Amino acid sequence: MRRSLIDILDLSIDELNELMDVAVDIADNPNKYNDSCKGKILATLFFEPSTRTRFSFEAAMYELGGQVIGFSDAKNSSVSKGESIADTAKTISCYADIIAMRHPLAGAPLVAAQSASVPVINAGDGGHCHPTQTLADLLTIRREKGGFDNLVVGFCGDLKYGRTVHSLITALARYKGIKIVLISPEELKLPFYVKRELDLKGVSYRETNDLENALGELDILYMTRVQKERFASIEEYERLKDCYILNEQKMKFAKPDTCILHPLPRVNEISVAIDNDPRACYFKQVLNGKYMRMALILKLLSEDKPVDQLDYLSRCEKVEIKGAVCSNPKCITQTEQELGQSFKLVDKEYNIHRCVYCEKKVR
Amino acid sequence: MRRSLIDILDLSIDELNELMDVAVDIADNPNKYNDSCKGKILATLFFEPSTRTRFSFEAAMYELGGQVIGFSDAKNSSVSKGESIADTAKTISCYADIIAMRHPLAGAPLVAAQSASVPVINAGDGGHCHPTQTLADLLTIRREKGGFDNLVVGFCGDLKYGRTVHSLITALARYKGIKIVLISPEELKLPFYVKRELDLKGVSYRETNDLENALGELDILYMTRVQKERFASIEEYERLKDCYILNEQKMKFAKPDTCILHPLPRVNEISVAIDNDPRACYFKQVLNGKYMRMALILKLLSEDKPVDQLDYLSRCEKVEIKGAVCSNPKCITQTEQELGQSFKLVDKEYNIHRCVYCEKKVR
Amino acid sequence: MRRSLIDILDLSIDELNELMDVAVDIADNPNKYNDSCKGKILATLFFEPSTRTRFSFEAAMYELGGQVIGFSDAKNSSVSKGESIADTAKTISCYADIIAMRHPLAGAPLVAAQSASVPVINAGDGGHCHPTQTLADLLTIRREKGGFDNLVVGFCGDLKYGRTVHSLITALARYKGIKIVLISPEELKLPFYVKRELDLKGVSYRETNDLENALGELDILYMTRVQKERFASIEEYERLKDCYILNEQKMKFAKPDTCILHPLPRVNEISVAIDNDPRACYFKQVLNGKYMRMALILKLLSEDKPVDQLDYLSRCEKVEIKGAVCSNPKCITQTEQELGQSFKLVDKEYNIHRCVYCEKKVR
Repeated sequence: MRRSLIDILDLSIDELNELMDVAVDIADNPNKYNDSCKGKILATLFFEPSTRTRFSFEAAMYELGGQVIGFSDAKNSSVSKGESIADTAKTISCYADIIAMRHPLAGAPLVAAQSASVPVINAGDGGHCHPTQTLADLLTIRREKGGFDNLVVGFCGDLKYGRTVHSLITALARYKGIKIVLISPEELKLPFYVKRELDLKGVSYRETNDLENALGELDILYMTRVQKERFASIEEYERLKDCYILNEQKMKFAKPDTCILHPLPRVNEISVAIDNDPRACYFKQVLNGKYMRMALILKLLSEDKPVDQLDYLSRCEKVEIKGAVCSNPKCITQTEQELGQSFKLVDKEYNIHRCVYCEKKVR
Repeated sequence: MRRSLIDILDLSIDELNELMDVAVDIADNPNKYNDSCKGKILATLFFEPSTRTRFSFEAAMYELGGQVIGFSDAKNSSVSKGESIADTAKTISCYADIIAMRHPLAGAPLVAAQSASVPVINAGDGGHCHPTQTLADLLTIRREKGGFDNLVVGFCGDLKYGRTVHSLITALARYKGIKIVLISPEELKLPFYVKRELDLKGVSYRETNDLENALGELDILYMTRVQKERFASIEEYERLKDCYILNEQKMKFAKPDTCILHPLPRVNEISVAIDNDPRACYFKQVLNGKYMRMALILKLLSEDKPVDQLDYLSRCEKVEIKGAVCSNPKCITQTEQELGQSFKLVDKEYNIHRCVYCEKKVR
Repeated sequence: MRRSLIDILDLSIDELNELMDVAVDIADNPNKYNDSCKGKILATLFFEPSTRTRFSFEAAMYELGGQVIGFSDAKNSSVSKGESIADTAKTISCYADIIAMRHPLAGAPLVAAQSASVPVINAGDGGHCHPTQTLADLLTIRREKGGFDNLVVGFCGDLKYGRTVHSLITALARYKGIKIVLISPEELKLPFYVKRELDLKGVSYRETNDLENALGELDILYMTRVQKERFASIEEYERLKDCYILNEQKMKFAKPDTCILHPLPRVNEISVAIDNDPRACYFKQVLNGKYMRMALILKLLSEDKPVDQLDYLSRCEKVEIKGAVCSNPKCITQTEQELGQSFKLVDKEYNIHRCVYCEKKVR
């Protein structure tokens, strides 16, 4: 197994800083990196479509002088016809120097990394992780704010299902003096286990459903989409939806240097009218995402010594649980041939075990 | 907004001549241009499939030493899921240096050009425009005939719905002494507004339904496909279809140097038997299309100063019409968020206004 | 017509040796070939999806410094809308220097080669031929065994429908002292006409349904998948399926240097448990396939003199048969416009004629 990126926490704070330094250098001196990956091939294996993420990886590789092979949707692809992720990873290792994989099932990129002889980047595995989006978020915050310590960061909208929110919160929790403001309707509050993580790390946070009121204290506002179908009833949705739409009126309550982020695509949760407000940073985020992917590709290609699978399987202690089976229907263990069940102990106090692939709690 | 190509008339006669000069130089000295676009990326955003046009753009960019990202059909693409054309254009501007867009809705490339920070080329927007096909047609005529003045140009087949026909007629109407012969069944005659344009510009034309008879006077014959479903009845179709099929028998009536064009793909409207006739130029047209796209990419990348949006919106006078809404179901104003209605006065005498995006008449 | 590869027998033994020499040199000195195809474009025209084969061609071209255009599934492609293969080939010849074509109908690549002005490689035409898979198989055997003469080669599984099996048997039949062992259930035995070919060439072969028993004498074991739907009944399938699954238990009967091949993808016919056995060569085959495609692209691009179509149409004597029509519903003659029927005499003794495109027997 080669060094890979499956979860944002696979990278230490020092490594993140190093990646961001390289990314900034790329932004400042693009020509310097023109031929850094000459003769190298990236495989973009998108088992479900995600045009934006795919383009970001492809543009990143091209700007490094490399080439790209790939598919953008496995539905029409023979790859999906019964072949295991492990075999696909071994085969693609004959054609490419590095793999970016998007898959609807959680854990698929980890399974690929275990079999591939080249580095694997998780480009999104179901509702589980999307670490390169978090890299884009982090670089944008650093470039706009100069650093992370003592920032007040608001998250607004769907905090229950948004994997980009969970990832960024987890990543920020490692910095000093971070204050988190969770802004959402009751139905879409941050899940207990993420708040528990914040508690364990001593990160200060508060919950509110009032965006307008919270805006004045935020250094960063991370907006997400609130989907109609998440609400208990249409009436509830109609009553609440406008509260979570950022428009010119609400921007008056923000600080003069509040930085507005959004993982995109947006539908209507940020009015087009504020795109030209200098505080709107969501298109800068797109550009920063490309720079971070360039830095990441460079880093992973340069680390050519084999790494221990256990570093990825057991960031927590790995344990065998007799007879236990992951019950998550969207976990790669449901479909991958000859892949055993594997668990890790994530919380000793409450004795909570999770599947190593999808991180669903085992009962 | 960067200099873009939305409609063939965006280019002046001088600019067209310059493009054709470059295209001929490319054809004569391909190696000279090998690295002209090194480090540049073209995005081919094909919201509906058009393999031929996409390949032409991609081959053009590769032969200039550049790279390509893109999708070939938006159906499976996340880009189509609710994101506005404007947001897509802003995002892609982070990944690419130039965009070629094909879209089923008229006006989409214009909307993209207004938001992108890179040049946008219209690679076909519904039944509206397809200017790079016209570039291919024009170069082929110039290379075969040495110029445009005083040519007799026949158009045969479906003159009612064929956007390539309308575009080429409009483009040719700017040259001196052009004579146009319109050969079609009654059902598929050239629309009134195109003939009106010819009248206003003083271009001579005549209409006929007899291809065989017209052939003897033509310098150029532009063939198009006659689709069965366009006719009033099957009987009518059966009676007429053979009249508009070009075969060895009919070619005997053509001049020894009549140049046969077709935008391709053909079905059966030109017999395979005449492919080797030196007058058959439709595969030369394919090659010329690639050279013109190369010249166009070079031109647009070299013009890096912002241009005025109004140059594109108001080749005619732009006017506000209170309460008026474009009624064209295939216009981008039907789906694009926060895009206002906008009209232009195209004919002062008859007081005709058209939507600036799809050019449909407003009532 | 340019020199193309439609059937493995288009290559002489000397040419095959030369290709394998180049492939080995590529494997040993990859950097030497980095820019061999700089400025050249490969078109991968996949009228049906085959991700693995497409990736192999694309990686091959990129590693030679060239570029790639293409589509991976014609369903969504305008190419499939009524345009003939001949027209597609002529058009693509304007965009690319070499074509790799996959098509569900037998004979399509031959039709393309007859019209294209660039070389065409058959990347699989229905159940007919797949010569570049055979190139991968041959190089793997040569690299593992040093040569072909006097090898004992077993074929196991579906020998009736497996085109890779027929191709490799035909290719091996040209070497000296080859012994072939055909291991299959009764339902899936090698077709009579392939055995007849072996007889005509004096190749020794025997048939058995016992893999375990045969293993001890094999230098090479070529595994293929046995599909449930091929059997007369579910009971029959259940009774037999395990006999044709290669696992650690059966590997004990193999020689210490038996080389295990499989065209991939596998489903369960080879246990993942033997992937790390040094005799398992199926992932080496993947890599060798890329090297052979690189060597083939180099060879065909270097042969720029026109070749005689008849070399491809009539490896056997070509004959006209009045009124005869190919009855194969999966033959390109069924759909291609203005393509005549053409036959060849393949067996004088039995007076057997076959369609030149799909090689189906004519009655």
